[in-house]
Amino acid sequence: MSFSKSRILGCVFVFCAPALAQIQNQAEDGQWPMAAKNFASTRFSALDQINAANVGTLKVAWTFSTGLTRGQEAAPLVVNNTMYVVTPWPNLLYALDLTQPGAPVKWTYSPHPSASAQGVACCDVVNRGAAYFNGRIYYNTLDMHTVAVDAVTGKEVWKTTLGDINSGESMTMAPLVAKGRVIVGNSGGELGVRGWLAGLDAATGAIAWRAYAAGPDKDVLIGPNFKPFYQADRAEDLGTKTWPGESWKIGGGGGWGWISYDPDLDLIYYGTANPGPWNSEQRPGDNKWTCTLFARRPENGEAIWAYQLNPHDEQDYDGVNENILVDLTIGGRLRKVLLHPDRNARMYVIDRATGEVLSAEPFAHQNTTESVDLKTGRIKTVPAKGTGFKTVRDICPAAPGGKDWQPSSFSPQTGLMYIPHNNLCMEFEGVQANYIAGTPYVGANVRMYPGPGGHRGEVSAWDPVNAKTIWTAKEMFPAWSGTVVTAGGLLFYGTMDGWFKAVDARNGRLLWQFKTGSGIIGQPVTYKGPDGKQYMAVLSGVGGWAGAVVSGGLNAKDGTAALGFANAMADLPKYTTKGGTLYVFSLP
Amino acid sequence: MSFSKSRILGCVFVFCAPALAQIQNQAEDGQWPMAAKNFASTRFSALDQINAANVGTLKVAWTFSTGLTRGQEAAPLVVNNTMYVVTPWPNLLYALDLTQPGAPVKWTYSPHPSASAQGVACCDVVNRGAAYFNGRIYYNTLDMHTVAVDAVTGKEVWKTTLGDINSGESMTMAPLVAKGRVIVGNSGGELGVRGWLAGLDAATGAIAWRAYAAGPDKDVLIGPNFKPFYQADRAEDLGTKTWPGESWKIGGGGGWGWISYDPDLDLIYYGTANPGPWNSEQRPGDNKWTCTLFARRPENGEAIWAYQLNPHDEQDYDGVNENILVDLTIGGRLRKVLLHPDRNARMYVIDRATGEVLSAEPFAHQNTTESVDLKTGRIKTVPAKGTGFKTVRDICPAAPGGKDWQPSSFSPQTGLMYIPHNNLCMEFEGVQANYIAGTPYVGANVRMYPGPGGHRGEVSAWDPVNAKTIWTAKEMFPAWSGTVVTAGGLLFYGTMDGWFKAVDARNGRLLWQFKTGSGIIGQPVTYKGPDGKQYMAVLSGVGGWAGAVVSGGLNAKDGTAALGFANAMADLPKYTTKGGTLYVFSLP
Repeated sequence: MSFSKSRILGCVFVFCAPALAQIQNQAEDGQWPMAAKNFASTRFSALDQINAANVGTLKVAWTFSTGLTRGQEAAPLVVNNTMYVVTPWPNLLYALDLTQPGAPVKWTYSPHPSASAQGVACCDVVNRGAAYFNGRIYYNTLDMHTVAVDAVTGKEVWKTTLGDINSGESMTMAPLVAKGRVIVGNSGGELGVRGWLAGLDAATGAIAWRAYAAGPDKDVLIGPNFKPFYQADRAEDLGTKTWPGESWKIGGGGGWGWISYDPDLDLIYYGTANPGPWNSEQRPGDNKWTCTLFARRPENGEAIWAYQLNPHDEQDYDGVNENILVDLTIGGRLRKVLLHPDRNARMYVIDRATGEVLSAEPFAHQNTTESVDLKTGRIKTVPAKGTGFKTVRDICPAAPGGKDWQPSSFSPQTGLMYIPHNNLCMEFEGVQANYIAGTPYVGANVRMYPGPGGHRGEVSAWDPVNAKTIWTAKEMFPAWSGTVVTAGGLLFYGTMDGWFKAVDARNGRLLWQFKTGSGIIGQPVTYKGPDGKQYMAVLSGVGGWAGAVVSGGLNAKDGTAALGFANAMADLPKYTTKGGTLYVFSLP
Repeated sequence: MSFSKSRILGCVFVFCAPALAQIQNQAEDGQWPMAAKNFASTRFSALDQINAANVGTLKVAWTFSTGLTRGQEAAPLVVNNTMYVVTPWPNLLYALDLTQPGAPVKWTYSPHPSASAQGVACCDVVNRGAAYFNGRIYYNTLDMHTVAVDAVTGKEVWKTTLGDINSGESMTMAPLVAKGRVIVGNSGGELGVRGWLAGLDAATGAIAWRAYAAGPDKDVLIGPNFKPFYQADRAEDLGTKTWPGESWKIGGGGGWGWISYDPDLDLIYYGTANPGPWNSEQRPGDNKWTCTLFARRPENGEAIWAYQLNPHDEQDYDGVNENILVDLTIGGRLRKVLLHPDRNARMYVIDRATGEVLSAEPFAHQNTTESVDLKTGRIKTVPAKGTGFKTVRDICPAAPGGKDWQPSSFSPQTGLMYIPHNNLCMEFEGVQANYIAGTPYVGANVRMYPGPGGHRGEVSAWDPVNAKTIWTAKEMFPAWSGTVVTAGGLLFYGTMDGWFKAVDARNGRLLWQFKTGSGIIGQPVTYKGPDGKQYMAVLSGVGGWAGAVVSGGLNAKDGTAALGFANAMADLPKYTTKGGTLYVFSLP
């Protein structure tokens, strides 16, 4: 596709409609006010000072140690010449003064989360970042709180309790603020937690709504305005009827992933997590609304449409991955779409006004599904790769999916989506899961290993109009960092062995790389400093589910550790060490 | 003085005598085989690729996270294109392959020290580095072991137990290897430990000798060849007679500092630590041989001369600081001297063949001593600043001294010594210390604060011939890192708020600085990479005694925390965070 065929939502262009006047949708101002950069979640910056011709001279401008060495997955924010960095538990918030040499700390805010929260985090004690809105920084703590902090003074404005860690719940996701609502969700699908997304009043912290992923329609906030595109998603109380007994109460479906927002349609988009337990034979039925994309109104949370990506998920294929909102000409017609690269390794191009699936082709190696019927929306699974009380080998992708939470970017210059992803398969032994509140509720012994080719990660450029891969860069380890793409024609991402890379967005050619202190699983960002220079920033500090073998000091000889990820990452400790340092780069 | 007046020992010049053929004394080969660079402890490198004209373009080449965030005081070693990095407890040893991009880890050795060792370390769980000799890396563990590790394979060759942490002993110092002996000493003066220095057989790890700092002459290895220069140091069993009762058995005098070696004279030089407890009224007498410089034979440890710097120390003025061995023309005569900047804030220039003090002028603000009598060697103290069962105010320098362990460097180009030091005073309340093995035995409540001018640190250039300061750079916090000086005319050091600085060695003018992630208390080194480029390397990671308020998470509101250092460093957490990352710099 050519550049002219694509148009991006969210005002990265200066000709954006003035109606989208909130800071998140300003014309490119060189800031980075939310994890995904903008409501459309493009992670595209119109800054172009750093380009293919000069990126070879990129150098470290300054660094900052978070003082903590668990996995660093957060996106730093940049607003009003201040950088905001959220750490893994104990979830400190640092404000760094970009106007001063070396960016000294202006203030540090500590929410003092319970130490016990570390015991219920399935996959390292990560935090994926904060959101800036109207003079405040909003973020979640591992121990089930959302906080609002004054962006200037660092004083706590409010702190709302969202749940109870004793039930196995935790919070790791980055909020989105839309229509005056701070939208947050829980984690805990591996501990029998009932998943939800909630909207809090940005001014007061009061919980305005909470939409569960399972249960009766009223709990799911399904009402008269709910119009799913496909028949399979239309019936009363599917959130209870597609589960055995009352198992939906401990059935997962957390809201721990990404949220996007279309101000014109006034809809937020997000996906729900996997059902629990992993052993699917314990929960016959579609298990709605797990592994489901939802479109909801941000103010009251009501569901407008839903599409279940993976009914009766058998492989831990959460639906929480990012949704990039772009307008594309497909089949000769300009469509408002969302681009959703799912854990099941398929890239969904979906009409975001209606929920109609336009394409769903694989972007990574997979053998668990045959196709998606665009008429019915139903995915056709491969029965031999289904799980239950048995051992199944060579399931691809493995539980972390074709990709996991690590967010893609989209460039209107190339019309391509840049997907950091995995190349992992697994052996899955289903066993009985017994529910005890606050403890693992998985029912599976899993061992993961590299997929075809032996490498464990890839970064792919995907053409969403023609539904095909344009280029792929292979990585030794899962590409567990986010990507960011710039008007300089550059794609940036980090690797789990510590390299921060810049490649040509057109062809994936490596143009520059720098060895940071630890593996990178963070989200790169770019911004314009007070000196007018363009900077790149990324946290280095391996961990997360993929890197828990290092950050959690797991014994890699137990292949089932880290829910089976350890088996695939036994050599990671040879390639990287724990860390927690922010690196900021600029041209000389 | 002019350049021609000074000559440096230890073969940093290419015309060095071939007799000094061990690797430590080779002509400049671009390596860094021991913490102090060479036997003479000059920390001078003849590398000159990085110089005043181009240092402004110095940039980070690569980084490495140690994965640990306690104080990082070690000097990285560079031998055979491999870098060796020792961490704070648990004292990992990393070997990094400098021939590969990003210097990946070749191997990691873990001595698995006891976790309990952390409880007896007075001043953070630091380690000051290793020594390379004959294909092995030698270093100490916090839990009282010295280990030899094969430099190529990372396999443990031997591991020798030197003591028992339950007595309060620990080990933090960097060994020196001379004449086939690995020379190591203990820490623990604040826990009633009896101090010693020991020589181990480098091949087998067998303890060849142990010289106590107190006790009868046979324990101190004082025999017929002992010829101190001054009368006060000549009498039998002063190591018992200058103590009340048997208090010498718990009287401190550890060997936790620096050791130098003169191959021509075949003498090692080191100083013993403070006597315990700090409350000097509990131990009337000179308390020999604490706070004493010793010259010993490396092979059997026998004492050749000794000079007690601070008889009956009243302010915790350890004698462990570095001794730089240079030959200087003083009073028209070429003298083999050692330069020793003492905790008492005086710079001792001492004839290293005889122990005669040639000068002892203050290099930092002090009010505790009036002068040193060069005829008798006796220091004249100020009685009003003496301590005991009373409260004394405005004692300068404070317990960490005019300077502490942070090592100086010496440039034969300028003839100047570069001293990183403190500007601290203290209030000292003496109380009863009660000995219980393995617990603090201090007897003092101390509160430190900045000295005159309000800044807490300085880096000074000292002219040892004329015994005067040439220039001084002020620092907000104590200058707690080492310095290194190069033939490029540059002096490098780090600050506790995270800046790594290059200044003009002639005048102290700041030429370049870079903000590392955490405060720097490490020892910078420089080396020539396999690509022929000159590199600078330093560990960033605040801590140690000075930075324990950050690395140990102390409550700075308790001014007596960290033996009173916390009171002077209450604002440090505003300026830096915990860290543990190696930074390596080069020209573009």
